[in-house]
Amino acid sequence: MSDVLIPRRDLDFLLGDWLCLDELLRTPKFAAHTREDVAAVLDLSERVAADLFLPAYKAADQIEPTLGADGVKVIPQIADAVSGYADLGLFAAGFDEALGGMALPSLVCTASLAQFMAANLSASAFVMLTTANARLIAAFGTPAQIDSFARPGIAGQATGTMCLSEPQAGSSLADIRTRAEPDGEDGLGRRFRLTGNKMWISGGDHDVTEDIVHLVLAKVPGADGQLVDGTSGISLFIVPKRLPSGERNDVSVAGLNHKMGYRGIPNCLLNLGERGGATGWLVGEVGQGLPIMFQMMNEARINVGLGAAAVAYRGYRHALRYAGERLQGRALDAPKGQPSAPVPIIEHADVKRMLLAQKVYAEGSLALIFYCARLVDQEGDADAAELLGLLTPVAKTWPSEWGLVANDLAIQVHGGYGYTRDFDVEQLYRDNRLNPIHEGTTGIQALDLLGRKTLKSNGRGYALLRERIDATILKADQIERLDGYGELLADAWDHIAVVVEGLRPLDAAASLENATPFLSAFGHAVLGWLWLDQAVVAANLGDDAFHRGKLWACRFFFETELPKVEFWLDFVDSHSDVASAAPADIF
Amino acid sequence: MSDVLIPRRDLDFLLGDWLCLDELLRTPKFAAHTREDVAAVLDLSERVAADLFLPAYKAADQIEPTLGADGVKVIPQIADAVSGYADLGLFAAGFDEALGGMALPSLVCTASLAQFMAANLSASAFVMLTTANARLIAAFGTPAQIDSFARPGIAGQATGTMCLSEPQAGSSLADIRTRAEPDGEDGLGRRFRLTGNKMWISGGDHDVTEDIVHLVLAKVPGADGQLVDGTSGISLFIVPKRLPSGERNDVSVAGLNHKMGYRGIPNCLLNLGERGGATGWLVGEVGQGLPIMFQMMNEARINVGLGAAAVAYRGYRHALRYAGERLQGRALDAPKGQPSAPVPIIEHADVKRMLLAQKVYAEGSLALIFYCARLVDQEGDADAAELLGLLTPVAKTWPSEWGLVANDLAIQVHGGYGYTRDFDVEQLYRDNRLNPIHEGTTGIQALDLLGRKTLKSNGRGYALLRERIDATILKADQIERLDGYGELLADAWDHIAVVVEGLRPLDAAASLENATPFLSAFGHAVLGWLWLDQAVVAANLGDDAFHRGKLWACRFFFETELPKVEFWLDFVDSHSDVASAAPADIF
Repeated sequence: MSDVLIPRRDLDFLLGDWLCLDELLRTPKFAAHTREDVAAVLDLSERVAADLFLPAYKAADQIEPTLGADGVKVIPQIADAVSGYADLGLFAAGFDEALGGMALPSLVCTASLAQFMAANLSASAFVMLTTANARLIAAFGTPAQIDSFARPGIAGQATGTMCLSEPQAGSSLADIRTRAEPDGEDGLGRRFRLTGNKMWISGGDHDVTEDIVHLVLAKVPGADGQLVDGTSGISLFIVPKRLPSGERNDVSVAGLNHKMGYRGIPNCLLNLGERGGATGWLVGEVGQGLPIMFQMMNEARINVGLGAAAVAYRGYRHALRYAGERLQGRALDAPKGQPSAPVPIIEHADVKRMLLAQKVYAEGSLALIFYCARLVDQEGDADAAELLGLLTPVAKTWPSEWGLVANDLAIQVHGGYGYTRDFDVEQLYRDNRLNPIHEGTTGIQALDLLGRKTLKSNGRGYALLRERIDATILKADQIERLDGYGELLADAWDHIAVVVEGLRPLDAAASLENATPFLSAFGHAVLGWLWLDQAVVAANLGDDAFHRGKLWACRFFFETELPKVEFWLDFVDSHSDVASAAPADIF
Repeated sequence: MSDVLIPRRDLDFLLGDWLCLDELLRTPKFAAHTREDVAAVLDLSERVAADLFLPAYKAADQIEPTLGADGVKVIPQIADAVSGYADLGLFAAGFDEALGGMALPSLVCTASLAQFMAANLSASAFVMLTTANARLIAAFGTPAQIDSFARPGIAGQATGTMCLSEPQAGSSLADIRTRAEPDGEDGLGRRFRLTGNKMWISGGDHDVTEDIVHLVLAKVPGADGQLVDGTSGISLFIVPKRLPSGERNDVSVAGLNHKMGYRGIPNCLLNLGERGGATGWLVGEVGQGLPIMFQMMNEARINVGLGAAAVAYRGYRHALRYAGERLQGRALDAPKGQPSAPVPIIEHADVKRMLLAQKVYAEGSLALIFYCARLVDQEGDADAAELLGLLTPVAKTWPSEWGLVANDLAIQVHGGYGYTRDFDVEQLYRDNRLNPIHEGTTGIQALDLLGRKTLKSNGRGYALLRERIDATILKADQIERLDGYGELLADAWDHIAVVVEGLRPLDAAASLENATPFLSAFGHAVLGWLWLDQAVVAANLGDDAFHRGKLWACRFFFETELPKVEFWLDFVDSHSDVASAAPADIF
């Protein structure tokens, strides 16, 4: 096992103590599983992550995927890691038994995936995309589509992609131009011929598996042969790399994007229909592409947060190891003029500050994602779904933004060494920089949170969230070591409510112009709640170093991070138009 | 000329309008120069930066320096850029005529260097290190040392290095172990034989110039043959790559550091004395190495800030260009349900926010460094020197930390494209990440500011700074468009004074435990002052787009950045021991 992965102690606390895994395993859906089963999966995950994924980490960065005449090639270590993962049946962990799966809770699958992402984020992206792809097909596909296109992914024999963006249409999916012309029907459903270009396709081609299942958004032309403006005409298609006949589909790689990091998985520009049209089968109905795709998109957004959390965590573990080993400087209160030996840098206040910040960002991010996974497991519970929807933009953004800050601090703790490729922290930082961008940038998440999930919502998600926060505060108020924190948290959430009411009378553009600082404030207030909630559990469990660590992190968060909420909210509440009203010529 | 370098309009404003270049050119020291001379130097700099340095930017990253049997090789484009710079006499720009220089003000040299750093930071590092090295020798060397070791640098025929760190001694120079044994005396001064290892030596070996002049810190053993503990035994030596005889000195490259960015200049581990001892000539007196070296160190610190500012500025220019060209999305207040064309993303409020933030970080950083350069030009003025000392940790840190944030935002404006190596912004981000580390990390700068320059100071620097701030506020109060800003700025500085008084009674360790947040607050308060001061000048100059831009940036800073000062100060003022008291076992 490696000391840079996520410590099992923390997973046990988060799953077992904090998120009440036992309770979950008593529900009918998961009653077939025991704590021992879960322990076995987590043991296995840690071992395989350490043995297969971690050793390929540097190589995945140094030797980028290449595009040749017969497609894209990745280094064999990545193919070995993914196939090792498949051999153990881990692709299937979260799927129903009827689909060949283990039907493990999302919470457990998420904890398992976290180890792989910590070990090798870009190799894990094959897994993450494939399971989300298969889950969408399993949910919305016909039985024949499920058999042909979901089962191979669940077995790890094919990988999956999501093909949304185009060179001219990134955040604005309404502007996609990929065209799908009806082409009859067969056992796999309504068949179409697709032509267009898809950009930013992770795993768009490779030699890790024989087949690839693309999920492609395209527009079916109207009666006049024209594509419809806006998002309503968008439909979803399954476009496999190989057709059932064994022939290659009309999908080709036009180029690879050469990325700053996250290099183990190729990122492709795909051309569809260079030879007459790529064959695709419709999923659901014409015009329903975007709502269906959002299932995969929402899962991918939470998994982006998971990856960011895992990479932040790994960086923190590296920094912690280095800070304990590196000798430099003396204590500020060391007696002057006497010879003395250098101390490990973990003894310096500023290094502790940087480690504590990483701890609250990394462990806090992981807690947030696990909390969301626990909500996913309450399938059928409308409250849980509502809350999950509200938290999704935070789950995507908070770990991506603050996990990157954690990785920045991990470099800083290493000093000059951290800037060299002899250490891993610079690569972690480069890898993590993608996360605030893909699957919806931070700015897009902010519009989702403040627009759709707040100002245009009926407020049910907010009410549910506040109920849970108040329950945490009530428990915290009983614990002397947490004195005062409940009040600070309540103040922050009261302030959010006031600010939201103040935005309601404004028009759409004015109410959303400072959405990003609003998301910053909301995210920090969520994390304040989650840290306090964990501290309550930790305080009740004992006074050993691990639990004291959770309480100390909570204190650090409340002293150094939570006050930022006020700063951001004051700005949002000012309804400042300093950004939106800036004329283009002043730049 | 390139639209990604620093616009001449801004240089003219900063030098001419804001920092009163004409006044400087009327002082006896610089009276030989006219505004036309300055314009010629700036024209030339922009042209050569665009023609020789910018085209080598990507190549410098892609093809790293290599170490072979005959030393380190860099790509020819870098050698060409540096020799082109030398051919134009630019190495000599800031030196006295007696040394073959042009005796231009530091302010002008700094503005010139900024263009080269914006175009190619790592190539410019050869220039920056060489001139600082030659300036130290010119100040403290004997006439013979100046002739042999400063003049070649001033002519651009040799480059310079600074050799301080060792593998076990980075921030803690007291622990260096390089040993200097007396070895007689010759026309170049007292000769020593040096043995030891020097780490992180930028330009430590290369094929750009024939010779390299190393300035090396080492300890002269005491009578008992032992090295003295602490910094007092440290002395400074000139150790050329080639001896006056033409023979190679006993300096060899033990290895290259492979960096995340900043790759155009090799970073070396040097071994001194593998063949009996490297020959070095003492500069100044035995034991005076550190105070002498601090001249070069302080100049290098300000130049690190300059590089960070220039790279932030370049990233801002790229983001601005992209935001004006990239079409994506619609205005939030566009009529629904009607076909409409995508707009340039610069029209979106969140993109404007990111551009404004880059503007205040990049232009603010450059203003800060130019302000310091103007103080350098007041040589002999004790007040200016005092103020420069107080501002140096801010000049090193603020551009390094916030310039990096600017580069992060430049990537974000580019979306997925910004994460690819097809665009320059990811490299700018990687290059800039070194700046919070080298020449004293942010944590070390914070101890310098709060310890030496604040709590252990007689307060003269603070008094001088406050005088200048109050003068700015008085002028701002006369301008309607700046109504209220003066009061906000005064509040911030009053708050700093109160916090400092509150720290005085504490012991050294307690008073310094939150030095880094103090530096953050102090830095932002300095920038608030400099933005207001620029806005005063801009407001009095006219209402065109350029000047309105400076006022808009000032408004943005006061609305979104200055309030952070309060946040950081409240924490420092709480005398929290949440970092310093954290036991090592809670991590």
